[in-house]
Amino acid sequence: MTRHTEHDTREHILAIGEQLCMHRGFTGMGLSELLKTAQVPKGSFYHYFRSKEAFGVAMLHRHYAAYEQALNQHFFSGQSSCRTHLLAWYLNTIEQFNQHGTISGCLTVKLSAEVCDLSEDMRTEMNAGVSMIISLLARVLEQGRQQNSLIFTGDAAVQAQVLYSLWLGANLQAKMSRSVIALESALEHVKTVIAAPAV
Amino acid sequence: MTRHTEHDTREHILAIGEQLCMHRGFTGMGLSELLKTAQVPKGSFYHYFRSKEAFGVAMLHRHYAAYEQALNQHFFSGQSSCRTHLLAWYLNTIEQFNQHGTISGCLTVKLSAEVCDLSEDMRTEMNAGVSMIISLLARVLEQGRQQNSLIFTGDAAVQAQVLYSLWLGANLQAKMSRSVIALESALEHVKTVIAAPAV
Repeated sequence: MTRHTEHDTREHILAIGEQLCMHRGFTGMGLSELLKTAQVPKGSFYHYFRSKEAFGVAMLHRHYAAYEQALNQHFFSGQSSCRTHLLAWYLNTIEQFNQHGTISGCLTVKLSAEVCDLSEDMRTEMNAGVSMIISLLARVLEQGRQQNSLIFTGDAAVQAQVLYSLWLGANLQAKMSRSVIALESALEHVKTVIAAPAV
Repeated sequence: MTRHTEHDTREHILAIGEQLCMHRGFTGMGLSELLKTAQVPKGSFYHYFRSKEAFGVAMLHRHYAAYEQALNQHFFSGQSSCRTHLLAWYLNTIEQFNQHGTISGCLTVKLSAEVCDLSEDMRTEMNAGVSMIISLLARVLEQGRQQNSLIFTGDAAVQAQVLYSLWLGANLQAKMSRSVIALESALEHVKTVIAAPAV
């Protein structure tokens, strides 16, 4: 029972911290604000995390673990073709942007520029998370090629890296411009990169 | 004479501030650190800028003005073809990364995720700067198409936006991975997007 509560508190701090970081960034999120919002005492925070940096690493780890699960579910279950799954992943971000008028939900978009110069431990954790996403993208590309639902040239891992870069940059452009156009242009480009086979 | 010195002090604060922001981010750059590094008193700072945010806007304005001049010089002078100029622009970043092992020199890469949620004035200034870069890219694409040094499909402005997103994202990936590979993969992709005409 105690262990269960302990786990909940740690999870709760991480979830609240992620919400705050998504808006304020990591440096901009004061520890006192986090404790106040999460309604936990300082001692409790330091019971779970030895420092703000250690908290940051755990937050990233949790974020990418959840993202991995969601992507696996999205890409590799269901009956649609790999191409359809891939395009739906893009359309999902576009829909969310249209609903909320902002990019949210991705710590890579929000924190990559900031934390890479700030903490080597956080950079390493983030890099592992992004490498995992790119690997999953490569896997779905390769599978799509095998099932003949999409065509692309060259190595799946390289292509996946390019697709990831493009989407990351387009997300930032959407943030800057408060417009969905960069996301839509990127998606149109992706459709040509992973062409549908001629019927 | 006084006006000249005034201009120099303002310029000096902006230049030092940009250097600090490039490493620490905007929130992470304390005003006291800026004043100490620039060796100017607080009163002097507030003589030129009514707030840290106003300083941020002026810093972005100055950054993109210099960038516009450099890009104009790079893209539209000299004897090489537009395709060569474009690819040289990419290679320049790759060379700098290989020399310094890091991405530096671009406030869009470093600050976009941070300042867009922080300050509407800074977001607007940054968006204007990025729109200017994309317009220049579109102009060089269009000119290259006319001089038959490169081939691409569709609208130059849309293509320029896609190229910018891809490069922005690849720069962040290079930051995260401390590896040049994402930049190189992006450049290889760009070469296929702006194909050389068959001889």
